[in-house]
Amino acid sequence: MKILVVGGGGMLGRKLIDYLLQNPSLNGKGIEEITSADAFANSNGAVAAKIKINHLVTDITDMQSCRQLVKGKPDLIYHLASVVSGEAESNFEKGYLVNLDGTRNLFEAIREISDDYCPRVIYTSSAAVFGPPYPDVIEDDFILQPRTSYGTQKVIGELLLNDYSRKGFLNGVGLRLPTICVRPGKPNAAASGVFSNIIREPLSGQAAVLNVSPDTRMIFASPKSAVGFLVHAAMIDTSSLGSRRSLTMPGVNATIADEIESLRRVAGEKVVALIKEEFDPAAQKIVDNWNFPPVTATRAKALGFTCESTFDELIISHIDNELGGEIKGGK
Amino acid sequence: MKILVVGGGGMLGRKLIDYLLQNPSLNGKGIEEITSADAFANSNGAVAAKIKINHLVTDITDMQSCRQLVKGKPDLIYHLASVVSGEAESNFEKGYLVNLDGTRNLFEAIREISDDYCPRVIYTSSAAVFGPPYPDVIEDDFILQPRTSYGTQKVIGELLLNDYSRKGFLNGVGLRLPTICVRPGKPNAAASGVFSNIIREPLSGQAAVLNVSPDTRMIFASPKSAVGFLVHAAMIDTSSLGSRRSLTMPGVNATIADEIESLRRVAGEKVVALIKEEFDPAAQKIVDNWNFPPVTATRAKALGFTCESTFDELIISHIDNELGGEIKGGK
Repeated sequence: MKILVVGGGGMLGRKLIDYLLQNPSLNGKGIEEITSADAFANSNGAVAAKIKINHLVTDITDMQSCRQLVKGKPDLIYHLASVVSGEAESNFEKGYLVNLDGTRNLFEAIREISDDYCPRVIYTSSAAVFGPPYPDVIEDDFILQPRTSYGTQKVIGELLLNDYSRKGFLNGVGLRLPTICVRPGKPNAAASGVFSNIIREPLSGQAAVLNVSPDTRMIFASPKSAVGFLVHAAMIDTSSLGSRRSLTMPGVNATIADEIESLRRVAGEKVVALIKEEFDPAAQKIVDNWNFPPVTATRAKALGFTCESTFDELIISHIDNELGGEIKGGK
Repeated sequence: MKILVVGGGGMLGRKLIDYLLQNPSLNGKGIEEITSADAFANSNGAVAAKIKINHLVTDITDMQSCRQLVKGKPDLIYHLASVVSGEAESNFEKGYLVNLDGTRNLFEAIREISDDYCPRVIYTSSAAVFGPPYPDVIEDDFILQPRTSYGTQKVIGELLLNDYSRKGFLNGVGLRLPTICVRPGKPNAAASGVFSNIIREPLSGQAAVLNVSPDTRMIFASPKSAVGFLVHAAMIDTSSLGSRRSLTMPGVNATIADEIESLRRVAGEKVVALIKEEFDPAAQKIVDNWNFPPVTATRAKALGFTCESTFDELIISHIDNELGGEIKGGK
């Protein structure tokens, strides 16, 4: 089978492709070719001998580029490309151009091909499709009324995915991902960065700033679980999805205080001491919108999507997969 | 104040403008100018001496045309223009072009003007934003998962209205209208036509075909109530809407059998005898998706939106407003 990963150069895209290169079959069908496309030059790790891998620089806001991406009729398409939440909020035009027009261009390019082409399209949506006021627990049928431009664009993508699937133009699966934590890489200045910063930096012996209230609550999954969601979505029986093609993924609900207690249990007091509290009212104002309750994720769990069940496991996953099992200055 | 009615040539647009011409003030502010814009040549009834009225032929799928429509900075904009449900389903491209791109063009043209221009924009959404499986009663927070391209486009318009309102580009009010009944005019070949056809034609002494099951259920408001919703939406305090700018309008829930019993009560047995049952499995298949439950419309009612409470009143409204109070061949 041939796989196209749009947004293949991002953190999740690279991890997904590396996984598929190491595990080159889905539901018993061998993977022959993977094309990674992103807005910038991208690359991947070791390549299994039998798999052809292409890395393309593309622009999904251009319809002709989308036609080029799908003209080889990939069997499976991951659409992970997105302007992130903070940028979609600060740059209104760019958010709609990439997240709405880009998504629509890709779906249109697929639709244009022919009646008998109906690839599985796995679309990364987000818990940002939900907006306050929240119930105590978010059930699968909680209303989609986001409070950000990013969330708005993600709901629109979900609606298009439903409609294009209903019409038989593609076979869509939408995944509402929790916040990825611990996110590898550099500290992130975005307001949401704090959830990962206060874990990742101390585990590497670096100081981290906690600028929001310890009561701030979010829903999380590890990068490894997120890759697991993406791979599993390629294998489920989509006939059971009905007309509502997007699934709320499971995740670990935790406050910042819960995160710190987990860090203490897993890595010890000296690591926790690297977190410096410097309250920032502006940052708090942003995250106040994010006091995100637990999700039931009933449909996703019934379909076999799984993730960690405690925040401790998220930290251990980071130590195992990103730090070679070692904590700098920890217990 | 200056008012722009996009879709001013349609059934509701004409009735709205005729009402405003007869009642030329809103919240105590006088109406100086009304511009009716539609894709075809349109006109209105008697004009109050003091009001300037313009009739334009325009194309909202063209961005430059939208800029022309709003360059005079109307204080109040009605966006009623839409490709209807059946056509959006049969012509996929046209539905998205008019209902999605057209709506976005209009909102973008408003946004482009300047920071201090923030007109009230009243957007007609539809009960079609909801899709099965339905609960017994549709509450205001029922999930928006439509089963038609039209419904999908209407939800997307609502989401854009929320986001553009949140950003302060416009002051949006979305109205999810029930099916308008009794719809004046000619018998309508669309599957939804049956709800009005079986009342309107017999009341004019004409035969009507009932081609679906009497159990088929829908939610209705009269044209007069729909105009009332549109006028009231111009006067409510929008600060109470919060971030969810679209309101489910109240309506009368009735089965086809309920409609016929109402017709018998209001117009008598001889009129009912003009309904001929000719069951059509194809038509039934379409309306099976429409066994639409009652709505609570709690938010709308609290804001003062009102409509008829029985189907009898809908029939009487039609007789009074369209037939000059007279039933041909009735009791």
